[in-house]
Amino acid sequence: MPVGTQATVKGLSARDLAEDLGVRILLANTYHLYLRPGHELIRQMGGLHRFMSWPNAVLTDSGGYQVFSLSGLRKITEQGVVFRSHLDGDLHTFTPESTVDVQLAFGSDILMVLDECPEYPVSHEHARESMHRTVRWARQAHEHYRRRIGEGGSGGALFPIVQGSMFPDLRAECARALVELDADGYAIGGLSVGEPRPLSLEMVEAAADILPRSRPRYAMGVGMPAELPEYVARGVDMMDCVLPSRNARNGCLFTSEGRVIIKHTRYRDDQRPLDPRCGCYTCTEYSRAYLRHLFQAKEILYAVLATRHNIRRYLDIMREIRHAIISGTFPEYLRCVHSAPNGAE
Amino acid sequence: MPVGTQATVKGLSARDLAEDLGVRILLANTYHLYLRPGHELIRQMGGLHRFMSWPNAVLTDSGGYQVFSLSGLRKITEQGVVFRSHLDGDLHTFTPESTVDVQLAFGSDILMVLDECPEYPVSHEHARESMHRTVRWARQAHEHYRRRIGEGGSGGALFPIVQGSMFPDLRAECARALVELDADGYAIGGLSVGEPRPLSLEMVEAAADILPRSRPRYAMGVGMPAELPEYVARGVDMMDCVLPSRNARNGCLFTSEGRVIIKHTRYRDDQRPLDPRCGCYTCTEYSRAYLRHLFQAKEILYAVLATRHNIRRYLDIMREIRHAIISGTFPEYLRCVHSAPNGAE
Repeated sequence: MPVGTQATVKGLSARDLAEDLGVRILLANTYHLYLRPGHELIRQMGGLHRFMSWPNAVLTDSGGYQVFSLSGLRKITEQGVVFRSHLDGDLHTFTPESTVDVQLAFGSDILMVLDECPEYPVSHEHARESMHRTVRWARQAHEHYRRRIGEGGSGGALFPIVQGSMFPDLRAECARALVELDADGYAIGGLSVGEPRPLSLEMVEAAADILPRSRPRYAMGVGMPAELPEYVARGVDMMDCVLPSRNARNGCLFTSEGRVIIKHTRYRDDQRPLDPRCGCYTCTEYSRAYLRHLFQAKEILYAVLATRHNIRRYLDIMREIRHAIISGTFPEYLRCVHSAPNGAE
Repeated sequence: MPVGTQATVKGLSARDLAEDLGVRILLANTYHLYLRPGHELIRQMGGLHRFMSWPNAVLTDSGGYQVFSLSGLRKITEQGVVFRSHLDGDLHTFTPESTVDVQLAFGSDILMVLDECPEYPVSHEHARESMHRTVRWARQAHEHYRRRIGEGGSGGALFPIVQGSMFPDLRAECARALVELDADGYAIGGLSVGEPRPLSLEMVEAAADILPRSRPRYAMGVGMPAELPEYVARGVDMMDCVLPSRNARNGCLFTSEGRVIIKHTRYRDDQRPLDPRCGCYTCTEYSRAYLRHLFQAKEILYAVLATRHNIRRYLDIMREIRHAIISGTFPEYLRCVHSAPNGAE
């Protein structure tokens, strides 16, 4: 899933995403959209899909991750979390119930429950307490959500989030507790918080084994191109990541031949497409030399073209993986990724 | 002509411009492209069209205007102008001959001669001296250009530029001298340098009357939407301006109902398209509320969508003007523009 933090994947129009790239679902951030332009405005505008003119599915996170990463001040109680807006310093409160309400106002297709995302590293005791609170919040959120739906509100699917820091026993315990909610899908959160990559994979494995195979399992906030098949191999069906779009803007482009750091002088007069095996608009129309020029000149079009390519690259990798699974060649695919000098990046 | 300073109209791809907006010609800046990425690189990449993947015509200015507006240091001699790069402070020289060579390396369809663009205001004496130098440079540029073409180089059309500051007698004298060059087209430069608008129009009139009607007459660096028909009424066939793209980025949008300053609170929950009478992608797909949100959130997509609309607005005005001329209703069209409360902006 490409990330559309503020109701836009940076630089790309709905048409670029849906028609050109074939994006079927994107992620938007509850924390950001709650603060600006506000969920009531978005409801008034007919919901997030209509507001951003998006014809396909939207998943919104609960805002929990941003509260923990962006807010200078926050106070966690059993009721929820009080935090300061990074925009104007105003105090706001998120509760398990209110974040469901905010996402119902958005009209999201997939809603996420409020979770607590502990820092890394953290003690087993702290992680256990925090995980238990996340489980209680998930129950409250689901109760509230069922009540709201029962009152006749239309709503998407609500996913709880497995936490437990980097402790496999806590991850497993959390997953077992959440399975009781009989949710439409399950997420594994609290990853990409600074831990080494093998640990992220281990945590995903500890949870995914317990989560029902018949429901989507979603690893939040991962990963690099070569890591995508690793997560899939561990049972993951969905991922979101800012890397393709953020790295694109910073000059790091992912190709089938490895990473291209576009500012390098060697691309100055390189007439080849960024990725000769890619069929995206950027690779079909433009040379590396032109992309480098746009990057050096800090031109907006650079971000537009680069993001377009990197998202296509991620979607192509996921397509390759699906194809390999269907044709029964996924183990070989995974071996190829392992043996590639730079991975499939 | 939309302005593509650094071989890109900020935020828009070649496809957006050529296919969606129907842009047939755009302007690129010799000064900028000479400094970065360099005309030799562009030649090596197959010329400007291929470098920027642009299927239609390109006009390049001579660099004179930027030398005078951007370069901290410059020294004008009879031979040309020595200036410091605004990028790295290096010294460079533009001569009437070298700027033709640079533009031939670009493969431009329309090349402009090096001219001196005096500040405003300036004395009659200084303006006269400067204008005479511009005429001498135009002769040298044309001689050099004919020699280069005679040697078998392929080239576009070379336009000389009428100068003379804000003195109608100098403008007329300059135009008369340049007509002797029997050029494929003529430009009127030195406008939009801080003078009041009626004076710009008067200067255009003084020159356009003398320039041959059978050749394109090009007013450089103008104007606001309501001014476009004024210039056309004075014999102008071509104009370029950064206003549609620059103002778009700054939040000023031109519509058939007047200017929209998108940050205003009144657009916060405005579900209407930016311009209900406009058929561009932005107006077809998005609301003012969404555009305002993107602007407030400093999102790249705002610049993309806003630029797309403003350029369409300019092209629509020019289409209206052409239609009015062909149908014999241009005088009425002009009267309507005069009597509109905010002009046709």
